[in-house]
Amino acid sequence: MKQSINELLPHVLKKEVIAHIEGETLYIHNRKVYPFRDEYVACRTTQEIAQALSSMITQGGGVLQVALTSMVFIAHEMRHNRIPFSLEEFIHSITMITDARKTNTTAARATNRVIASLSEDFESTTKENIYEKVLTLVTQIEDEFDSLYDSLSDIGSSLIQDNDGIFTTCFAEHTFVLSMKKAQLSGKKIHLWVPETRPYLQGAHLSAPSLVEMNIETTLMSDAMAAHYINEGKITRYMSALDLLTLDGYAVNKVGSLNNAILSNYYNIPYHLFAISPDKEKKSYKDIVMEERDPKEMLIFQGMDITSNGVKGIYPAFDIIPPHLISGFITPKGVLQPHEIKEY
Amino acid sequence: MKQSINELLPHVLKKEVIAHIEGETLYIHNRKVYPFRDEYVACRTTQEIAQALSSMITQGGGVLQVALTSMVFIAHEMRHNRIPFSLEEFIHSITMITDARKTNTTAARATNRVIASLSEDFESTTKENIYEKVLTLVTQIEDEFDSLYDSLSDIGSSLIQDNDGIFTTCFAEHTFVLSMKKAQLSGKKIHLWVPETRPYLQGAHLSAPSLVEMNIETTLMSDAMAAHYINEGKITRYMSALDLLTLDGYAVNKVGSLNNAILSNYYNIPYHLFAISPDKEKKSYKDIVMEERDPKEMLIFQGMDITSNGVKGIYPAFDIIPPHLISGFITPKGVLQPHEIKEY
Repeated sequence: MKQSINELLPHVLKKEVIAHIEGETLYIHNRKVYPFRDEYVACRTTQEIAQALSSMITQGGGVLQVALTSMVFIAHEMRHNRIPFSLEEFIHSITMITDARKTNTTAARATNRVIASLSEDFESTTKENIYEKVLTLVTQIEDEFDSLYDSLSDIGSSLIQDNDGIFTTCFAEHTFVLSMKKAQLSGKKIHLWVPETRPYLQGAHLSAPSLVEMNIETTLMSDAMAAHYINEGKITRYMSALDLLTLDGYAVNKVGSLNNAILSNYYNIPYHLFAISPDKEKKSYKDIVMEERDPKEMLIFQGMDITSNGVKGIYPAFDIIPPHLISGFITPKGVLQPHEIKEY
Repeated sequence: MKQSINELLPHVLKKEVIAHIEGETLYIHNRKVYPFRDEYVACRTTQEIAQALSSMITQGGGVLQVALTSMVFIAHEMRHNRIPFSLEEFIHSITMITDARKTNTTAARATNRVIASLSEDFESTTKENIYEKVLTLVTQIEDEFDSLYDSLSDIGSSLIQDNDGIFTTCFAEHTFVLSMKKAQLSGKKIHLWVPETRPYLQGAHLSAPSLVEMNIETTLMSDAMAAHYINEGKITRYMSALDLLTLDGYAVNKVGSLNNAILSNYYNIPYHLFAISPDKEKKSYKDIVMEERDPKEMLIFQGMDITSNGVKGIYPAFDIIPPHLISGFITPKGVLQPHEIKEY
């Protein structure tokens, strides 16, 4: 099963591409320059890893993989005495990394599981054993996620109808692209409609190239064209990932998701979101910690100014999508309605 | 009155900036490189003028001003024997220019008025008299439009409420920016929210710089962020120009306008469009001639590739906005409902 996922996944989603350790360095695949350059950002300290995440060298599910690999990196650095050997230091180092992006809690929830397990007997264990234990726990979590990606994409692909025009937002990663590939492999004819997703262009840089690499027919549009093609009947379905799911059924995802959810609702086309699990600490949408990014990012494109001095920019990282705009969450327990999340 | 309009207008909307004749050349202000460069495209033939319009060196109301100036240019060229002197040649030359963009018929309707007047006695008139007649007719039409811009912006500014957050699309030109300035001058506090308007970035290149030049507080956002700020209560009103109004109350405007109209409708904020007049030849939205632009334009940003090979682009120039999404048209006869347009 894992074998088949790895074979299906495009370059940017291969585990070893997202993040890997070589010697004293953790390398993060630079999604900001992809697909024009296939480069890695070299991080020699946990501060550098946190900084790379803050500046969105990788994002979404990439943050989870970096956080998992970072725990191995920290244990490895402790083993070689480059980081002091203590549970406090381990927690401090990994928390700095998971705090780099505060809205999506997937990585923090995964690292908290490892911390909880390490806490049981950290003081009485050798550096070597801690390293082995972290490696085992991380591999176990990675396997769990692979298994979840596999089962969620089975459900995702089953929702796709023959001749669907599928619209997405940003880069919905493993569950989404695997759903598309499985739908296609099962003989369904599909066409993908990808908005470029300004200001960082994850749609143009990550989604569209990955889908084309997977031999899926893909059209790139601006972030303003969805209604045009839903109205023409070419887009029949909207699917996205999510960054956070609260127990009251609110979804947090890349800014623009709310625009598109409202359009889907208006035209009565389904909007499904892939959700590994809700964050049980977030009882209500009021508990969401919302990230605002540097407004200057909106005023440039790949380093070039796009407007004149005196114009202000603004860049909210995420939208909150209310339950009534959501057709269903694709979860390990099947397709759930927003009101069913609180019993998850 | 005209005096005050010219004083209020930003650089890109000054008549002589949009288009002017020097010797044997008609110069068109290059909106594609503004505000970074203040340059003109030199056109020595009517073919070159048509080509400049096709490639959107100017657009929207700029096309009207270029078409008006082109008639003077053609008469001037006839006077100097560089274009054969005949009514057929005059019609042929100006039609090539107005045909360069087919959806917006404002320019063609204005040039048709001049053609109708010239047709009365073209054969019995000297080249010099034809030139003088064209110059007089064009000046008369320009004055009419100035007067319309003035009265429509009086209505537009009267709709604005104190503390409004006003959202727009693309570059709504004279009527819109004058409405904003007049609202501000009357003591209303306003904030402008401008989507960048991909792929050509008229929002970032034209609207935002012009508004800032007019000392109006302006925030630039991506084309995907409107719902975010309407939902937060920061955007309270949507206003745009239109490229075409049909007698059954459908509006044609820059792609993205339909997205934004649906969002405004969902959040119950007003959406008004500035409409000089409907095209009486367009009885129904079915009569709209819809322009599709080169899909490759969607795959680049200020000249740079934004995605990988194999990804298709798409670029519909315009959206059609149905009457039920429209709060009203700001016309010379006041604010009209879509169903009132057929009696215009």
